[in-house]
Amino acid sequence: MSFSAEDHLYMAQALRLAESGRCLTTPNPAVGCVLVRQGRVIGQGHTQPVGGPHAEVMAMRDAVEQGEDIRGATAYVTLEPCSHHGRTPPCANGLIEAGIARVVAAMVDPHPLVAGRGLAMLREAGIVVEAGLLAGEARESLVGFLSRIERGRPWFRLKIAASLDGRTALANGESQWITGPAARADVQRLRARSCAMLTGSGTVLKDDPLLTVRDLDIGRQPLRVVLDSRAQMPVTAKMLAAPGRTLVVVAKAQAAHIAALEGAGAEVIALPDAQGRVDLAGLLAELGRRGINELTAEAGARLNGACLHSGLVDEVVLYQAPVLLGNAASGMADFSLGSLADKLAPRVAEVRQVGADTRYCLRFDGKS
Amino acid sequence: MSFSAEDHLYMAQALRLAESGRCLTTPNPAVGCVLVRQGRVIGQGHTQPVGGPHAEVMAMRDAVEQGEDIRGATAYVTLEPCSHHGRTPPCANGLIEAGIARVVAAMVDPHPLVAGRGLAMLREAGIVVEAGLLAGEARESLVGFLSRIERGRPWFRLKIAASLDGRTALANGESQWITGPAARADVQRLRARSCAMLTGSGTVLKDDPLLTVRDLDIGRQPLRVVLDSRAQMPVTAKMLAAPGRTLVVVAKAQAAHIAALEGAGAEVIALPDAQGRVDLAGLLAELGRRGINELTAEAGARLNGACLHSGLVDEVVLYQAPVLLGNAASGMADFSLGSLADKLAPRVAEVRQVGADTRYCLRFDGKS
Repeated sequence: MSFSAEDHLYMAQALRLAESGRCLTTPNPAVGCVLVRQGRVIGQGHTQPVGGPHAEVMAMRDAVEQGEDIRGATAYVTLEPCSHHGRTPPCANGLIEAGIARVVAAMVDPHPLVAGRGLAMLREAGIVVEAGLLAGEARESLVGFLSRIERGRPWFRLKIAASLDGRTALANGESQWITGPAARADVQRLRARSCAMLTGSGTVLKDDPLLTVRDLDIGRQPLRVVLDSRAQMPVTAKMLAAPGRTLVVVAKAQAAHIAALEGAGAEVIALPDAQGRVDLAGLLAELGRRGINELTAEAGARLNGACLHSGLVDEVVLYQAPVLLGNAASGMADFSLGSLADKLAPRVAEVRQVGADTRYCLRFDGKS
Repeated sequence: MSFSAEDHLYMAQALRLAESGRCLTTPNPAVGCVLVRQGRVIGQGHTQPVGGPHAEVMAMRDAVEQGEDIRGATAYVTLEPCSHHGRTPPCANGLIEAGIARVVAAMVDPHPLVAGRGLAMLREAGIVVEAGLLAGEARESLVGFLSRIERGRPWFRLKIAASLDGRTALANGESQWITGPAARADVQRLRARSCAMLTGSGTVLKDDPLLTVRDLDIGRQPLRVVLDSRAQMPVTAKMLAAPGRTLVVVAKAQAAHIAALEGAGAEVIALPDAQGRVDLAGLLAELGRRGINELTAEAGARLNGACLHSGLVDEVVLYQAPVLLGNAASGMADFSLGSLADKLAPRVAEVRQVGADTRYCLRFDGKS
């Protein structure tokens, strides 16, 4: 299949539209749609919050509101139009009824209820259907949704803020303001795109974080997930009174501890592994079942180390401040290697400056 | 004073010439000279190894060899021409005798035997003299020489190779190949420009490094300086048999230890501080007296920490490999902060990719 320069341009525009819906649509994928007729964009839209219209419907409404004629248009969508009645009617039907002539999809929807059926419906209705344009970019745009659908678990990201010598806090626990305001604003964007935030009860005891999105209005708060293998999560934790829900995951079902946390507003589940600690892989599967597309951990060295050691981490976003804190300060991640051959060597997917700090996106995807 | 675009061009060329002499001239400054007549470069040169001609003489020889007429030419020099009889006759005289009409110097030589006298001699001979063109670049080019002349001590650089989480070696000591071949080649260039290399006897015991320049032919080896506060430097150290000289600095004069090291070819001096350790500031002063312009440390976490804590470090060159080694591995520098307000916040003078690794040049110069 070959696509024209115009096709690329319009799909790139659809991907930008998808981006503007990114933090709003969970657990649905944030999709973008551009309608083009006779070389002119006549409508655009992106997926609305759950229960609201999908991107294709928004784009068609946009065109109608502007008095445009949709018939014969081409629809550029970042994901195959849905073919099933969910909370909204199938978008494929809508496109057919509107008289769309051609549909270009960046990728086929791997969701078992769609999986090519949307494109097949369109083809059967006589619409020209092409797929695979900017597919890599579309996959990146939908990384969390695809992880949940394809692997049954969220995209799992560690966020770490550290000095050049790999230190995240002084020995006395002081950790505020290692990185600068631009990096902290970027962390807010990471939280906003996350469906859930992960931390350990040790970090709750030490730093009492809220893990809320504060600077961006996304109409929801990520689920807070606290790993509490040692049953030490305090009922006085500030996050328990913050907007949004908190899920505490214990390794052993201790009735009094659970009752106290539930009394303070948390949900508590027990997910022990064979070593009597919380089963990380089991937790990811449980979060997948709950519709969590992206999970971001902001944790201490112990949980960071356990996550990295588990091999379940997909991505580390590292903010590195150009300062040195010395070996007495806390390191990033507690793990131990027997040989340099075993070093963790993620792919450097992106490096950029964020204020005075450097932001690394490291991927454990085996690509080079 | 205002300089033309051509002036800038020719001085930049003189600075490049200086760079090609960089590793050869110690303890003399590596200077570059370009001769221009009627809008055309007629000769170029840079300082030769000690006892050989200076840049001005080399440029004039170059012009003569090419049959050019030097009279009336402009000489661009990165440092004020010398005015005193040292190992070679004064360059100022040479320029006067050759009939040079104008001399543009990037900076005045702070050496007490010159200090403006060279420029004054030229002016008295009726030559047009201007100074200060690309002075910042010239200072950078002569950073070691200027440190020794102005502060009486070498420019002091720490070289560190580490992982993204700030680790330089595994707990078992394994440290080879954390960074890649391009970074290691760059380290050879750092050694080649250094007049002396510094390490601790702990590192000698653990890694037995040579600290020699291997991949570049510079006709000399940097002096090796080993801090040996604990009198543990082994006489079997490989560096004692390597080309070049080794200076062992002890804190306490233990006759047997000193005799053994001297027997193995080392020079030994005692430089105790009040705490019975080697006096770092005293050592830098001693190295300054010995004509050491640039000193580069490749040391372990203990000596790195002591150096950074001393406030004597001018520059850290950090090679950072995109890998994670975990908290069980060794950190960069043993020091401890009581408050984040005390963090070491050097200026990031340069960041660039060296192969797969990132090279930071961090400066403790109080500039922003």
